[in-house]
This record gives sequence, structure tokens and C-alpha cells, in this order.
Amino acid sequence: MRLYRLPKFTSIDDLTLSEAPRPTPGRGQVLVKMHAASLNYRDLAIVVGRYGLAAVPQNVVPLSDGAGEVIEVGEGVTRVKSGDRVAGIFMQSWMGGEIQVTDRGSALGGAIDGVLAEYCVFNEQGLVHLPAHLSYEEGATLPCAAVTAWNALFTQQRLRPGQTVLVLGTGGVSVFGLQFAKAAGAQIIVTSSSDEKLERARTLGATHGINYKTHPEWEKEVRRLTDGRGVDHVIEVGGAGTLQRSLASARLGGTVYLIGVLSGVGQQIDPMPILGGGVTLRGIFVGSRDMFEAMNLAIGVHQLRPVIDRVFAFEQAREAYRHQFSGAHFGKVVIRIS
Amino acid sequence: MRLYRLPKFTSIDDLTLSEAPRPTPGRGQVLVKMHAASLNYRDLAIVVGRYGLAAVPQNVVPLSDGAGEVIEVGEGVTRVKSGDRVAGIFMQSWMGGEIQVTDRGSALGGAIDGVLAEYCVFNEQGLVHLPAHLSYEEGATLPCAAVTAWNALFTQQRLRPGQTVLVLGTGGVSVFGLQFAKAAGAQIIVTSSSDEKLERARTLGATHGINYKTHPEWEKEVRRLTDGRGVDHVIEVGGAGTLQRSLASARLGGTVYLIGVLSGVGQQIDPMPILGGGVTLRGIFVGSRDMFEAMNLAIGVHQLRPVIDRVFAFEQAREAYRHQFSGAHFGKVVIRIS
Amino acid sequence: MRLYRLPKFTSIDDLTLSEAPRPTPGRGQVLVKMHAASLNYRDLAIVVGRYGLAAVPQNVVPLSDGAGEVIEVGEGVTRVKSGDRVAGIFMQSWMGGEIQVTDRGSALGGAIDGVLAEYCVFNEQGLVHLPAHLSYEEGATLPCAAVTAWNALFTQQRLRPGQTVLVLGTGGVSVFGLQFAKAAGAQIIVTSSSDEKLERARTLGATHGINYKTHPEWEKEVRRLTDGRGVDHVIEVGGAGTLQRSLASARLGGTVYLIGVLSGVGQQIDPMPILGGGVTLRGIFVGSRDMFEAMNLAIGVHQLRPVIDRVFAFEQAREAYRHQFSGAHFGKVVIRIS
Amino acid sequence: MRLYRLPKFTSIDDLTLSEAPRPTPGRGQVLVKMHAASLNYRDLAIVVGRYGLAAVPQNVVPLSDGAGEVIEVGEGVTRVKSGDRVAGIFMQSWMGGEIQVTDRGSALGGAIDGVLAEYCVFNEQGLVHLPAHLSYEEGATLPCAAVTAWNALFTQQRLRPGQTVLVLGTGGVSVFGLQFAKAAGAQIIVTSSSDEKLERARTLGATHGINYKTHPEWEKEVRRLTDGRGVDHVIEVGGAGTLQRSLASARLGGTVYLIGVLSGVGQQIDPMPILGGGVTLRGIFVGSRDMFEAMNLAIGVHQLRPVIDRVFAFEQAREAYRHQFSGAHFGKVVIRIS
Repeated sequence: MRLYRLPKFTSIDDLTLSEAPRPTPGRGQVLVKMHAASLNYRDLAIVVGRYGLAAVPQNVVPLSDGAGEVIEVGEGVTRVKSGDRVAGIFMQSWMGGEIQVTDRGSALGGAIDGVLAEYCVFNEQGLVHLPAHLSYEEGATLPCAAVTAWNALFTQQRLRPGQTVLVLGTGGVSVFGLQFAKAAGAQIIVTSSSDEKLERARTLGATHGINYKTHPEWEKEVRRLTDGRGVDHVIEVGGAGTLQRSLASARLGGTVYLIGVLSGVGQQIDPMPILGGGVTLRGIFVGSRDMFEAMNLAIGVHQLRPVIDRVFAFEQAREAYRHQFSGAHFGKVVIRIS
Repeated sequence: MRLYRLPKFTSIDDLTLSEAPRPTPGRGQVLVKMHAASLNYRDLAIVVGRYGLAAVPQNVVPLSDGAGEVIEVGEGVTRVKSGDRVAGIFMQSWMGGEIQVTDRGSALGGAIDGVLAEYCVFNEQGLVHLPAHLSYEEGATLPCAAVTAWNALFTQQRLRPGQTVLVLGTGGVSVFGLQFAKAAGAQIIVTSSSDEKLERARTLGATHGINYKTHPEWEKEVRRLTDGRGVDHVIEVGGAGTLQRSLASARLGGTVYLIGVLSGVGQQIDPMPILGGGVTLRGIFVGSRDMFEAMNLAIGVHQLRPVIDRVFAFEQAREAYRHQFSGAHFGKVVIRIS
Repeated sequence: MRLYRLPKFTSIDDLTLSEAPRPTPGRGQVLVKMHAASLNYRDLAIVVGRYGLAAVPQNVVPLSDGAGEVIEVGEGVTRVKSGDRVAGIFMQSWMGGEIQVTDRGSALGGAIDGVLAEYCVFNEQGLVHLPAHLSYEEGATLPCAAVTAWNALFTQQRLRPGQTVLVLGTGGVSVFGLQFAKAAGAQIIVTSSSDEKLERARTLGATHGINYKTHPEWEKEVRRLTDGRGVDHVIEVGGAGTLQRSLASARLGGTVYLIGVLSGVGQQIDPMPILGGGVTLRGIFVGSRDMFEAMNLAIGVHQLRPVIDRVFAFEQAREAYRHQFSGAHFGKVVIRIS
Repeated sequence: MRLYRLPKFTSIDDLTLSEAPRPTPGRGQVLVKMHAASLNYRDLAIVVGRYGLAAVPQNVVPLSDGAGEVIEVGEGVTRVKSGDRVAGIFMQSWMGGEIQVTDRGSALGGAIDGVLAEYCVFNEQGLVHLPAHLSYEEGATLPCAAVTAWNALFTQQRLRPGQTVLVLGTGGVSVFGLQFAKAAGAQIIVTSSSDEKLERARTLGATHGINYKTHPEWEKEVRRLTDGRGVDHVIEVGGAGTLQRSLASARLGGTVYLIGVLSGVGQQIDPMPILGGGVTLRGIFVGSRDMFEAMNLAIGVHQLRPVIDRVFAFEQAREAYRHQFSGAHFGKVVIRIS
């Protein structure tokens, strides 16, 4: 079978198409024929050697997010059967409850081999069923970005109808955050540098859009749009210099969810608004299988469709990475595997 | 000014139209010209002397739920001003957090004088502003029934989008529960003895309706509609003999909210399903001002309109009570005061 | 190796000592040499065919609670290693978060083979490490009774220091509840029919004891001891006729945890106090691995020692069951395996 | 009567002893003869004009924390009676639930007149009863520092027995945090620049002490003491440059409570550990009356005694401020009023 590996971590060109024997599922394991995978900013950080959250072994198979069909199950498997349409969970060992230190060592496409391969073996516990109305391409967008947005909005502080959510930009997590917040009866404010993207966000349910080029101090616009109150929740995806403004956009007692590694080293913030505003700043690191399954229920009930920016062929993996890196996307970048 | 009193508690005929001097607001108090009031089952229980939850003084002014306009404010009042459109909160002292024992002694139209009067004096802390798009009649439906439904769905166990809510019947709390659950992205199953009411419930957003006359073992129908899983939340309004079926309708780990006193003395339940199903049975006793205000935000954002069954004139208070007592209503029964 | 099986479910005499080959751990599995097991009321219900919560297969190996030493690990095992002192978790698939329907099918000594055997194979995910200061006999008492008490007190409603907990009787769950509540800074009221047991409960940290023989209406004594307020939490282990009094013992907004199947069929309760008291009645069905591990931390920090009533030899399993059934025990009944 | 005022906000010398007529309680109000007050870092920030969290009116009576005896009650007062021993709550309008924007405008000794006066009038809702075993001096230490520590540990993330809490230094909030964490069954690590203070902290229940002079990279010592795991909770009182180390001390998924304004302008932090560690950084702004009352229950049950560093006479208010400012204190600085 064909698969990609990362023999080193210096640039997108390190992505190497390779061959390997098709794996066989052992006891409790499942063989999945992969149909699609999707990219996250983390995958860029890994390929260029700037991913600090976990050690990544040489020759790792990249990408955490993929979907496919179960084609063989090992002894004792009960959760899935041949023919089931499934996606792998980001951290293969985080089933529910609080994350454990060891769970970070089970992240696909990072600590362990990922899904950019024609066939993958998973432990049966590391899979969830896809919502029935989604294609493999759509299902492949869920494991990291969608679960992250869900974890932010529905697990600790919990969005209530009538509240307001601010989402920064129109990348994967932000668009899922917008869709989920809309489904949960919230108002949504979106920021972008493009009026066209803001218009698209409105068609997905955003209440207000702020072009941060024309409103560089966009936190003031957020305050204005909320009658000075500020928003209840901020999906902060970590672009350079945004966190300080996000904190200034939160209402008294509001929450800012810190996600992703966009801005990386060097960004510093003044924590005073956290204190004075009684704000909670919560780091979000994807989520558990329980969250994934609760999210899938909501996706099914609302017939939500992940927003796919563009689909690349398996052979075009490097192009897909470059497109993700450009930041020009709206929603998710997908690689079709078969 | 005119107002109603209850000199004794034997029947609806005890409702007595009286005269009293218009009150004057003291320090921290507010005079409200009442425009409308609404009825709850509790008000029937009080008038016939079967309300066991708190002592009701002789000659009490009945009804907890009313809305009107602030026409005078006492010294030191800052929360409201003349001209504001307001409703009183059910328990005048429950601002937020957990209910305190003393809060029950501050319930309007029960422990203390209620709102079926042309003018009422409130402590400024005991009022909330009406959502701007609601009439006084609509606003008058909120304090007991709507806040109760909100408390059930959004404070402890907290509804997530994609979950399923079962609401029993089409009385005030149930219809609000339906509307709020819909706004929060849930699926809703409604029971009724009338196909016509079920059809109306569907137009309000219910996903499924069950006629409990044609399906007397309706909990089986609930299971069928949820692929055997059961529902996440049950708004149980306490009709005779329903609680056992409600418990049987809840999913493993689900929650049944026990509300109201419809069935009264004598109903017994077998608690085994609570144990075996890991179910939570939670008694709901209206809610706090914080909950009322959070709910009003959602009502505003979703432009929800309380469902009013019928509006009676101030002079027709007894007819209004009788209509409420008949159980024929869908939504809320209102008395227009001025 | 030697092990017990239940060829049928009619009486304690069905417990049959058998022989079987020592099992071998497959991929992801672990072989444990069992040293001790402990009994719960559930085990009695199973042996006499009155356990309704899950289907129990013929010839099942009984008992959920056991502790032993890892002596061999299969391929890919990382959570434990040879020499580790471990206990199995009650439901082998409930890692954390909310219980799933399928988790009930993974309960040891019920849906699947249990621990009354000289050697057991577990999935590595189904084990926790014992607190270092506990013997195997002590460790074997934890999986069901202790985790149940922990789940009740620390997961949803969450005990705060200064609150009051009522525990009924001095069986396994109740004594753990007492010890945990004490460690968490609560006051504890214990009921018993024996002044001697009440005295022992006091030495374990109980603040008050109520002899329910001399105070048959013990809920009044609970009210008296709490200045009329009632208790914050009740560990209700389901003895016949106690639930109604437990509900009457809870404070406004308090919680009663419904545990176990002591009283079984036929007990009915009047739910009115749940409504009027805003009480939450929560069914508790053991708990997850996450809870087990959080509990073990607390047991370690407080150097808590499970209270063992009596230890029986492996050959005396039937006697151990009879002793558990007598209800005369204080704390846990243990079987030493090797 | 005598009282202090702040005609301007430039230095401690602005504290001005004045005379005013004894106030009279209106409807719903209570006259309290003040016996003691205590200081917080906030009071220093106010007197030197560096308090940014709310506008402070000229000639404000300083200090938020005081205790005294009710000597007269106005019309309609039911919560307290003459002779009751009470303390004022920090924000007079925050009863329970989430803080509201308007609550900040009700903070004693800041937005409104405080307690450094021989007599004060409070709204009856703005008082709590003192735990019976505390003196007025001890009771006067509770409203800001103790409630802040309680809010951090027991309201959102909630301390469980067996967890570990890190408290920075030995000021008021930290010592209360230590005492409460101990009462709740936690392990506590304390930092200080003084071995003598660390020794005192140990006598109060601290498990470990770290001298940050001898261990300037004390977060490494925290990791060492927790077997590399990090602590569950950090009481971060905002000394210059500590927040970054506090974040590095928290376990995966742990929480850092950001309290106080010690370090003030200019401190910047790198938020990456929040993201990578899934850490929650939560700004704490004192707490509600509900929290105060729950805390008082715990203080009563555990017979906790606030640690008073030194008591100054009413005439020595400036000296008391200077002592607080010196940072040499262990626990609370108190002013005896009468």
C-alpha cells in the first residue's frame, strides 16, 4: 500500500510517498481502508519541526484526521464491524473525562503514525462512526478541528442559547465553532480580513462580521456590537497578536478558549484583563472520544456539513500542505486518498 | 386601585375583587402599574387550599406572574427607572446561585402578596426588564413557567445541541420547554391526548408527537423514536401516573425534571429505574433572577413569543382560573389588567 | 488453576470450585495473579438470580472486585508491567466521562467473567494501580463499593468542606462514604441498629450516630442534628423503606444518591419531597476508571485504610457470601485467593 | 462618630480621620457598630491611586473588610436583628450566581463608602453572620481575602481530596487558601522567601514549603515534589514575575487562579503553557454572598481561625497601611475600631 512518511522535519518537501505492506489487525484492532484525510495547522508545525507539544518520531506517517471504511476486524472487536464508516480519534487513548498525561502520547500523526495512508490499523476504541449524511471527505475534517471547537463550547463553561460567541477568522476550528454555536442558539461574531469571507460566514449563520483590516482595533467593534457588554465566549485560534484583543472582547466573567499554535514563539500578553474582568482563559487540546460522539449526534440532528475549502488528490499532499499554509482557506483542506 | 384578594382558600369563588389605596414606593422600592398577569397550576392549588409548599396568609393578593410599567421609583433605586417595562421575579429574594430556605418565603402570590392588582410595589431587586419585542401579556407569562423550564434545561445538567428532550403535555412549562429546547438545537418529543395539539407543537418545533391516548404505554414509543436509547431530558410536569413512564423514557444517565403538583397526593413510584438507569430525578422549584435574565437574552435573540392560550379581562379572573383548571389550554392563560 | 463458577443462579450453593487452564495474555492484555477479592450486595443478587441490571451468562466467574500482581503482559502493553500491584475496574470499558450503554456489558462478575480465580486476564485499560500503602486484601475492596461512594460525593454535586453527609448503615459503600466525606472536610451522620457500630463509626470520623431502632423516625433526628436544615448529601444504600426517610433528611436543594439493590422489588416512594424540596435523587452505578484513579490519589494522601470486616479463605467462598448476606458486617467482606 | 476618608489618592498620608453624624438605617437597612476592619493589597492600590478596576469617588471611606454588631434595623428587615455579629460582603449587590457588571459598582471602600468608620449602614442583603467562634478581629479578615480563596478552590473547578494546591507566599489570600485546602483534604505546597514563614505554614497544614530565594526556579521544585506531574490548583496572587512560573507548575489540565494586583503594570506572560498544558487561567474577583456563607459553614465546622499578623488601633490606620505595604506580614493586618 502507499503512504506518506516524514523522514525529517524541515519543510513541506520532506513529505515522502512510500510503500509498505498492508497491515493486519490483531486482537482488538481494526483495519480501515482510508478514503480521505484533512489538514490542521498542527500538521504544518510538525512538518517544519516547530511542534513543541510532543515528540514526533522519525518516519512518522503524518496527519491526525482521516476517515474510511472498516474492512477487517481482529479478535474480540465489538464496537465496529466490516463496512462501518469511521474516523479515528485524535488522541487514541482519550476516551472521556479529563485528559491524562499519557493521552498526549497517543496522538495520531504526531506521537504515533497518522492517517495519510491507504490502510490504517486502529484499536477499536480509537474509532467513532461517521454521521450518516457525511461523505468521507466531510468526515475526515472532524477529528481535530471540529472536536476542538466542540470541547471549547460545550464541555466546561457551556454555551447557552442567547449568548454571543466570537470566532477569529475562517479556518477550520473557527468555521466549526460558528456552525456549532449557531446550532446551539447563540449569536456569532466573526472576524476576517476579507469582506467576501465575512459574507460567506453570514450565510453559515454569523450574526455580525468584522473586517479587522478596516477595524484594526476590532475588540472595540465587538464591544459596540454587544452594547458594551463583550462576548460570552471567544474561540481564539492564536494568530499573532490577537489574544490581547480577544481578552478585551470578553464580557465580565467570560471565557476565551486558547487554541492552536498559529503565532508561536514570542507572543506575550498582559494578564491584567483576566484579573479585572474575571475572565477565564482556557487552553483547549482537542478532545475525547465522548466529545466526538456527542458532537456527531449534533451534526446528525442539524444535518451540518463541514465546510471544505478544497480537495487535493493523494499525490498532491505537498500542494495541500502549501494551500493550508497560505492561510487563504475558508474551512478545511482535504486530501482524497481513494 | 382595584385588586383581588383571597379571604379564604376553598374554591375559585373565593377570589374577591377589592379596593385598596395605591401604594407608595419606599427606599429601594418601585411602583409598577400592572398591565397583565398569568396563571399557573400552583395558583389553582392555592385557591383551593391544597398548596403545601409554603404558608399562604389570609387575604393574600394572588398570582406570581405579572408585567407592567415602572411609574415611580423610591430613593436609591438604580436598577430600573420610570417607563421601564418589567416583570416581577417569582421568589423576590432569589437573585442567583442556590436557593436558600428563606427564598421560599418571598414567593409572590403565595407567601407574600402577588400581582393581580392594578399597582404593585416591588423591591428594585425583585424585577427584571421584559424582552423588548414582547407585549405585556406575553411578558406576564414568564416568571414561573418559563423560568422553571429554563432552570431545568440550562442550569445543572445543561442541554447540548443534538440531544433529545421529552416534554409532557402542552401546558405552560411544557410549551416553554419545547421552545427553549428548540432554540438550543435539541430534538423534542411532545406527548398530548390531542392530535391537534401535537400538530401545533410540531409547528413550534417539536420533532415528534405522541398521542398518549392511542399510545397509553407512551414510554415505549419514546424508546422507539430514539432507537431504543431513551431521551436525555424529560420535562415532567407531574400529571398523575406519568412519572414512572418518564423515568422509563430517560436514557442511561439521563435526567428527569420533576415540576409542579398536578397529580398531588397519593402518587407513588418505584425508584428502581433511577438506580438501574443511573438516572437523575431533579426537583425544580422555579428559578433565580439570574436565570430569568439569561432566559430573557435567549428570548430576545430568538425572538421567541410565549404561546398565549387565551386572554381574560381583569373582571373575569374567576373565568380565567376555571379555564386554567380545565386543562384544555395550550400554553398560558393570561389576565389583562389595564 | 482454580476458580469459581456459577453454573446456575438459585442459591449460594451454586458457587462451584472448578479448574481451568491458566490463561495467556494477548495483544494489549495482562495476566494478573489474583491475591484477594471482595463481596458486594450485587454478588448476592447475582447468585440468587435476582440481579436485574444486566444479563449474566451461565458459568460466569463471580465477583467484580479483586486485586493482584501483574505477572505477564501481552504485546503493546504500556500502562502496567510485571510486578505491578493492580485492581480491575468494575466496568472494564468505562474509562471516563459519562457511562455509555455498552459499558454495562463490561461489568466483571456479571456480564463477563469476574475475579474469583487464581489468575485473570484483563485488557490493560481495565486496570488501576493500587495505592502503595494498601495490602491486596485492602485493595480488593475498592472497585465497586469505594468507587461508588467516590462517584456519589465528588463527581456531579461535589461535596464541599463544611457540608454534612448522611450515610445509612455500615456496609461497604457507607463506610467508604464516611471515610471520604471525612477526608473532604465534611460532617458525617451515620445510622445503624447497633450502638457498637455507631461507636466504631465515630472512631472513623463520624460526627453523629443515630440508632434507628431507638429512633425509628430517624429523619427527625437528622433534622434536629442539623438545626432543622437537613443534610447536603445522603448516601442511600437502598435498604427497604429508607428512601422516603432519606428524602425527608435532605436539605432544600440537597442530593440523595441512590445506590444498590438492597430492598428490591416492591418499594414505592412518594416523590413529593423531591419537588417541594428541590431535591436531586441521583442513581449511582459504580464509576469510571478516572474516578477510581482520582480516588486512589485521595486514599494515598490520607493513608486511608479500607475497613475489612472479615477475611475468608479461597475455599470458604460460600461462607463469605453467607456472611455478606447476614448483613452483620461492618465494612467489607474479603476472600483471600493466594 | 469618627471615620476615615480619602480626600485624594496620592499616598498613605491621604488617610484622614474625620467626623460625621451617626447614620440612621432606612427601610431594608441596618446600622452596624463596627468593631474591626482588615486590609488588603487593593486598599493600598486605592490609596496611592493605582486601582484600575473601578472608579473610586473622592472622600470615600476606605476598606472593604469589617465586622461589627447590629445595633438598629430599619423597616422590613428580616435577615438580621439587633445584637447579631456580622460582616459586610465585598460587593454589596453580588448575592449568588455569576457576577454582573453592576456588582462591581457596589464594592465597599472603592465604588462606595467602606468600613473604616465607627458606624456603618448596610442594606440587610449586604451582610452575613460571623462564625460563632470568631472574634470581631478575626471576622473582619474574611470578606475579601477569605472569600477570594474560597471562590478559587470551591466554585468552578472544585478541589477534591487528594489533589495538590500551590499557594504563593503567606499573605491573606494565600494563608486562607492553605487553610481551606487543608480542610478539604488536599496537599499544599507553599512558597516564601523566609524559612521561618514556611515553618509556620507547615504548622497550619502545608505539606511542603519552597524557599524561592534558594530555589529561584521554584516551578522545578514544584514538579519534583509532585513526581513531575505538577499541581492541580495554583493560588496565584500576582507578585511580579510569578505567573509564568505558576503556569509551569500546573499539571496538564490544571488551573491557575489569578488574584490581586501585586505586580501591576508591565508584567507580560507567554501564553503557550496554557495551550500546551490545557491549563485554565481564571481571574478571580472576590466572590458572592452565597460563597461567603458556604465558607462560613466550613470555618465553623473546622473551627478555623484566621491568621492575624498584627492588630492596630483605630488611630493607627496609616501605620496599618504601611505594615501591609511592607509585605512582611503573615496573614492579615487588622485595625481595631472599638
